Amino acid sequence: MSKLDNAIGKLKFDANGLIPAICVDHENKQILQVAYMNAESFGKTLETGKATFFSRSRQKLWVKGEQSGHTQTVKTIYLDCDGDALVVEVSQIGGACHMGYRSCFFRELADDGQWEVIAEKVFDPDEVYKSKG
Amino acid sequence: MSKLDNAIGKLKFDANGLIPAICVDHENKQILQVAYMNAESFGKTLETGKATFFSRSRQKLWVKGEQSGHTQTVKTIYLDCDGDALVVEVSQIGGACHMGYRSCFFRELADDGQWEVIAEKVFDPDEVYKSKG
Repeated sequence: MSKLDNAIGKLKFDANGLIPAICVDHENKQILQVAYMNAESFGKTLETGKATFFSRSRQKLWVKGEQSGHTQTVKTIYLDCDGDALVVEVSQIGGACHMGYRSCFFRELADDGQWEVIAEKVFDPDEVYKSKG
Repeated sequence: MSKLDNAIGKLKFDANGLIPAICVDHENKQILQVAYMNAESFGKTLETGKATFFSRSRQKLWVKGEQSGHTQTVKTIYLDCDGDALVVEVSQIGGACHMGYRSCFFRELADDGQWEVIAEKVFDPDEVYKSKG
């Protein structure tokens, strides 16, 4: 059996063939984003070492950072007890969030129920996505 | 508008009315588990300060630790850019995993594709769940 065959045999994909993958900065353990993998994108991730997901909105494979250059190089992958969620520790270039933040989780619940922005942008999304066409 | 009304207005629940919540130890930032909230369990979590989820297998509300005593007291909640995932920082009593581990993510992908256990149990699940009936 190949590495992929061994590894994928323990994964439980949902009714849409997806498993959530929580991506974490391997240096400071900050959660960067939640995305979803199907079997093919999990295989691509193992093969290439670059975090690759299945885009639910575009219904296609998506190499994280393919447009922005903000790729995620995989360091370690963890599986939970039920086999239905992954944690992927990565080396993140630039920022993980398409809105320009290092992490997609840049809003915190305040006492009045507002979601307050608690981070500063690390890049200008207009510039990054425009220039990459 | 109440805190709950304000907060919940920004959440995007999926087709089943659920949003994934990644629970993190607020002290060392370790990811403890992924669970799912519906609107009611999110409200209960805000109201009680105890992490409360919707069990997909049992199709009912589930206060984390109600059986084991291993509750999660909520410290901070974060929302991602798309509004479709939460990070919940908690104070965890005992272990988050029903198999006895501190974190459900106790297996790491090895070079041969096996998922190797990399943590030690912090409690005996047979004892904890039996004694709580």
